[in-house]
Amino acid sequence: MPSIKKILVANRGEIALRVMRTAREMGIKTVAIYSEPDRTALHVRYADESVCIGPAASSESYLRGDKIIEVCKQLGVDAIHPGYGFLSENARFSQMVKDAGLIFIGPSAQSIEIMGDKLSAKRTVAKYNIPMVPGTPDAVEDRAEAKLIANQIGYPVLIKASAGGGGKGMRIVENEEEFDEQMERAVSEAIASFGDGAVFVEKYVASPRHVEIQVLGDQHGNIIHLFERECSVQRRHQKVVEEAPSSCLTPEIREAMGKCAVDVARSCGYYGAGTVEFIVDEKLNFYFLEMNTRLQVEHPVSEMITGVDLVRQMIYVAEGKVLEIKQEDLKINGHAMEVRVYAEDPTNNFLPDVGTLHTYVRPQGNGVRVDDGFEQGMAIPIYYDPMIAKLITYAATRQESIDKMVRAIDEYEITGVQTTLGFCRFVMLHEAFTSGQFDTHFVKHYFTPEVLKKGIDEEEAQIAAALVGYLMEQSKKPVSGSTGAAVPVKSKWKANRMN
Amino acid sequence: MPSIKKILVANRGEIALRVMRTAREMGIKTVAIYSEPDRTALHVRYADESVCIGPAASSESYLRGDKIIEVCKQLGVDAIHPGYGFLSENARFSQMVKDAGLIFIGPSAQSIEIMGDKLSAKRTVAKYNIPMVPGTPDAVEDRAEAKLIANQIGYPVLIKASAGGGGKGMRIVENEEEFDEQMERAVSEAIASFGDGAVFVEKYVASPRHVEIQVLGDQHGNIIHLFERECSVQRRHQKVVEEAPSSCLTPEIREAMGKCAVDVARSCGYYGAGTVEFIVDEKLNFYFLEMNTRLQVEHPVSEMITGVDLVRQMIYVAEGKVLEIKQEDLKINGHAMEVRVYAEDPTNNFLPDVGTLHTYVRPQGNGVRVDDGFEQGMAIPIYYDPMIAKLITYAATRQESIDKMVRAIDEYEITGVQTTLGFCRFVMLHEAFTSGQFDTHFVKHYFTPEVLKKGIDEEEAQIAAALVGYLMEQSKKPVSGSTGAAVPVKSKWKANRMN
Repeated sequence: MPSIKKILVANRGEIALRVMRTAREMGIKTVAIYSEPDRTALHVRYADESVCIGPAASSESYLRGDKIIEVCKQLGVDAIHPGYGFLSENARFSQMVKDAGLIFIGPSAQSIEIMGDKLSAKRTVAKYNIPMVPGTPDAVEDRAEAKLIANQIGYPVLIKASAGGGGKGMRIVENEEEFDEQMERAVSEAIASFGDGAVFVEKYVASPRHVEIQVLGDQHGNIIHLFERECSVQRRHQKVVEEAPSSCLTPEIREAMGKCAVDVARSCGYYGAGTVEFIVDEKLNFYFLEMNTRLQVEHPVSEMITGVDLVRQMIYVAEGKVLEIKQEDLKINGHAMEVRVYAEDPTNNFLPDVGTLHTYVRPQGNGVRVDDGFEQGMAIPIYYDPMIAKLITYAATRQESIDKMVRAIDEYEITGVQTTLGFCRFVMLHEAFTSGQFDTHFVKHYFTPEVLKKGIDEEEAQIAAALVGYLMEQSKKPVSGSTGAAVPVKSKWKANRMN
Repeated sequence: MPSIKKILVANRGEIALRVMRTAREMGIKTVAIYSEPDRTALHVRYADESVCIGPAASSESYLRGDKIIEVCKQLGVDAIHPGYGFLSENARFSQMVKDAGLIFIGPSAQSIEIMGDKLSAKRTVAKYNIPMVPGTPDAVEDRAEAKLIANQIGYPVLIKASAGGGGKGMRIVENEEEFDEQMERAVSEAIASFGDGAVFVEKYVASPRHVEIQVLGDQHGNIIHLFERECSVQRRHQKVVEEAPSSCLTPEIREAMGKCAVDVARSCGYYGAGTVEFIVDEKLNFYFLEMNTRLQVEHPVSEMITGVDLVRQMIYVAEGKVLEIKQEDLKINGHAMEVRVYAEDPTNNFLPDVGTLHTYVRPQGNGVRVDDGFEQGMAIPIYYDPMIAKLITYAATRQESIDKMVRAIDEYEITGVQTTLGFCRFVMLHEAFTSGQFDTHFVKHYFTPEVLKKGIDEEEAQIAAALVGYLMEQSKKPVSGSTGAAVPVKSKWKANRMN
């Protein structure tokens, strides 16, 4: 069995640091690669060795699999961890790594390839009886056939252009009576937009929740799941808040989804860490969406509730070891919450706001984890995803975890760039979120830039009122017996909450 | 039932921040008190309100219970959390707080008083059949009587002067034959040193381990325990490394000790968080030492393995609420390790080395918790305990927790003062510690300043050798295909490990 002694992390930022920390704990040496603008990045300073791999453009640096493999050979690297993004779901790269006699810390090229394509994924899982959103298996052009299928599925259904995207040629049909008219419109729109009238008909999930299952497999056919993460709070299909466990599942549904996810992984001979994504409707029917064949951004929430270090396990199974964790050993302990802190302006359509972190003070304390790749004084480069950090909290219950998140957000001090901290705080305090009554439309339904602006105004008004009251009090009664006055100093943490 | 809305923390530094963070998560306002040199301390900036309570000397500031209560009245404070040290085990203060109509977040004055005195504690727990180190109940002067008792206890026994301290008048007796001679010497020494020849005779535990049980009680008679912490690595009776669970207990002994600790708490009508300390011998016999009637410095390791926020629970029960956690709900998950990072020079007899923290970068990442009260640029005042931080790691197993601690120590960057980080690293890597085969004599047995100096030399030699090798390589083969050379840059974290 090969023992990994030196890992190259083919990534940057927080995930590169995240992987290196575990490698170091395992006594494994680390190699960083970096693009020119990342020369002074934390992941470069953290690694035992580091190599500049090219200029800013990812296509000329972080995506240059050939160069990366060359560096591995030169530095005696045994294994490559791809992180997420970049080359992590590139089947060709996985194969290249293997062909070069190195270990790819992730699944086989074949697993990546199968799950990377929706149709091949569907075909592969077919014999495992995995629930899919009911609908036409292929695009239809015949309207009568489409209606027949719609009637079988049951309303509401969604008609969507086969060549579609961006909502064009997409129609929700509430009942049979509406069908012909909406079909007509969908097809016309599809022809007008794409020159192709073929459409899919599928069950319309009006209030969907995004729930995904973390799986972990070894190279000997053992596959377990580490329960679910819920990632329903999304903005334009980008996850912004993730938590584990989900607030909507029952133990029975959880078990059924877990089993299903393990079957999906088994269907493609999966090993390593992976995620099986589902859509869940209001009646807790769940449907397979896709499998992500890599470590997920939001993996920390699963680590918190299970106590399993996923990167450590990925390295173990990449070495060919037998998974030591059994399904029955795993139990959900407590509740974890994660928000993604971006250098974006939530009051200006979430436009990236890169720049220098003039102030950067992380929240601390019991149950707070910050995964980031920056420190005070560093600049957030314009070339890459503007995520500053993942802020994770962990507590005994969901509400305590939310309360801790609000505390941690208020404690986070960032100046120099606009951030999404205030937006995340808004989500944490919103009744729909705290009550667990939300779906993937949360942001669209409840968020407007005004809720943040209003928040600031209210707070400023409160500070002003407090000051007036304080000054009036001061003129009356001095604090005796103490060497200073009882000054109600407004904490900087409070004042900074909207950064 | 009174609901606490505003808490004054009658303490400073990391524990004040620790308490305030939980208070904030619970929606409770916080008031800080501070001495003049602590004016810019983090706990002051963190609180919603803050009041200067007096000059540097604790007796004129943090110990001024009268002033503290006055501040509470002026600012509408409901409750006082005393932290540890200062007024935390002052029965009179607990009573004063109560008499002022405020809530003391801790046990009753009576509980503090009983457990504050060894003899009254012994008397109080008598009916609960708590194991004590076998010995004479009172001081004896009669040598024949002493020998009789020694024979009953079984050898080795310890003879110690009733008025003693500092090892004076203390003798270990290995067998009956030695007894008369050693007794003679002990009594002579006792008379010479203290003018009092009375001695105690008790069982000598040659290889003792310090294991303590965390208890938690409400005001309705419910008392639970949160398992043990082991604090055997001590330097001059000061704990330096703490962990949970202990590496020496069996499940049966753990359960017996837990039951015993709950009985000790019950014997004095205890409520709040408290710690029952035991000495454990090589055969896992355990003996009651004393009860600490407050939150302990090392409480985080218990929080990590149980998921219980002890400060939150202290506040709950102080409000008169019924403890919601049942004993059967509690389970040990994973392993937690804590080291105390002091501004002391381990190569110079651990002399305090206060000064300004020119560099202060905390370790981050999964399973690392830093409880501190400083940030970069702050000075460590000479007036108080020179502890900089508590560094806590949490992982699935003891060894992983140790590995993570070494990683975290290496990642900690502190310049401006000497610290005990290198000493803590030495403990973590010592075979006696990693194997679990150690006792309270660990530091005395294994540590000399030379082990740290040697470590530095070795590392410097390695760096030099690596550099020579690198420069030789450089002259031969440039890295082709990458825009930079594969420079084996020595990580700053590595280089800083001995700070």
